[in-house]
Amino acid sequence: MQIAIVLFDRFTALDAIGPYEMLCRIPGADTVFVARRPGPVRNDLGDLALVADKGLEEVPAPDILVVPGGPGQSARMDDEELLGWLRTASAASTWTTSVCTGSLLLAAAGLLEGRRATSHWLALDGLAAFGAEPTGERVVTDGKFITAAGVSSGIDMGLTLVGRVAGDEHAQLVQLGTEYDPRPPYDAGSPRKAPAAIVDRLRARSRFVLR
Amino acid sequence: MQIAIVLFDRFTALDAIGPYEMLCRIPGADTVFVARRPGPVRNDLGDLALVADKGLEEVPAPDILVVPGGPGQSARMDDEELLGWLRTASAASTWTTSVCTGSLLLAAAGLLEGRRATSHWLALDGLAAFGAEPTGERVVTDGKFITAAGVSSGIDMGLTLVGRVAGDEHAQLVQLGTEYDPRPPYDAGSPRKAPAAIVDRLRARSRFVLR
Repeated sequence: MQIAIVLFDRFTALDAIGPYEMLCRIPGADTVFVARRPGPVRNDLGDLALVADKGLEEVPAPDILVVPGGPGQSARMDDEELLGWLRTASAASTWTTSVCTGSLLLAAAGLLEGRRATSHWLALDGLAAFGAEPTGERVVTDGKFITAAGVSSGIDMGLTLVGRVAGDEHAQLVQLGTEYDPRPPYDAGSPRKAPAAIVDRLRARSRFVLR
Repeated sequence: MQIAIVLFDRFTALDAIGPYEMLCRIPGADTVFVARRPGPVRNDLGDLALVADKGLEEVPAPDILVVPGGPGQSARMDDEELLGWLRTASAASTWTTSVCTGSLLLAAAGLLEGRRATSHWLALDGLAAFGAEPTGERVVTDGKFITAAGVSSGIDMGLTLVGRVAGDEHAQLVQLGTEYDPRPPYDAGSPRKAPAAIVDRLRARSRFVLR
């Protein structure tokens, strides 16, 4: 069971690590971080580097494909090397997944046309522009495609997929092992719940809080 | 505002990245991953490497100190180079924090004696052995020490600390920006909630689910 997590410059770290920490615990999982070239890849703020152990061409047919998002996604929307790899890899995959604006890359590769999908709440319109049907749900499954909302939602997506692949009991073991019993100290995690002033400030600033 | 996140062989990735993704968004934050020597550091499963950009001696006095846990923690409990650095760095810090069994390293350094603290639910006894007062809470603040429970709890700890340092409004912006509105697909994230059979299986197996 090969799991490929794609890295690109200015990805968002938790988009990749949230699902990683769940999916890596699937029995028999062989997880690999991939990028155009092997080596360190810097995140959106530039103060974190995760190592891509393999180049894209070394991992042509993963069983599970995970595409994180982040500010760097916008620079990759016409990167035919990456989009072509996503098309080929996804054609062979059992599951193709994304977190946050990673779904825009899947959409740009033509993989989400006519499918229900999600993304960061500020990026849902961009998804519709590629013919996907955006929903406000946190984790959306349509066939073998599972897309998740912003940044932290990849944990929920990952655990959902652990359950699909390895069964509910194993997923519960993973949840208990990672003590995933969230207790956010505020209740502002979605635009439906956050104070309107907070929503407006974030909408005005950019798609992401970058300090 | 320098934030130092300590890496060591066989750390657990989400322990480090959960708080990172919250704390890095504090205005003026300068986050640095540190380890005994700069360079890639492999996680518990060995399939992920995060780069330590600086050695411990290059970061003697961070404002915020974050110590993740993971299976590699047990091999560091008498690592005087690391424990000595933790003592010195913590003496200068504004906040000293840990996730999961990272609190055992703080305890081994003598920093949690007589303090309320927490750790992974399977490691609470180990904490008591060092004179700390373990609690079953997810995030425990005692003076400038904030300890968090297992793996995923570092996100809650991180967001809590963002609120303390940058205010409630900024913390809500970070929560909304990272869309931290968790929806776990199961309700087995703590030993009080998980089915007894799941708790027993995990207790019998090891401290962590490693596939």
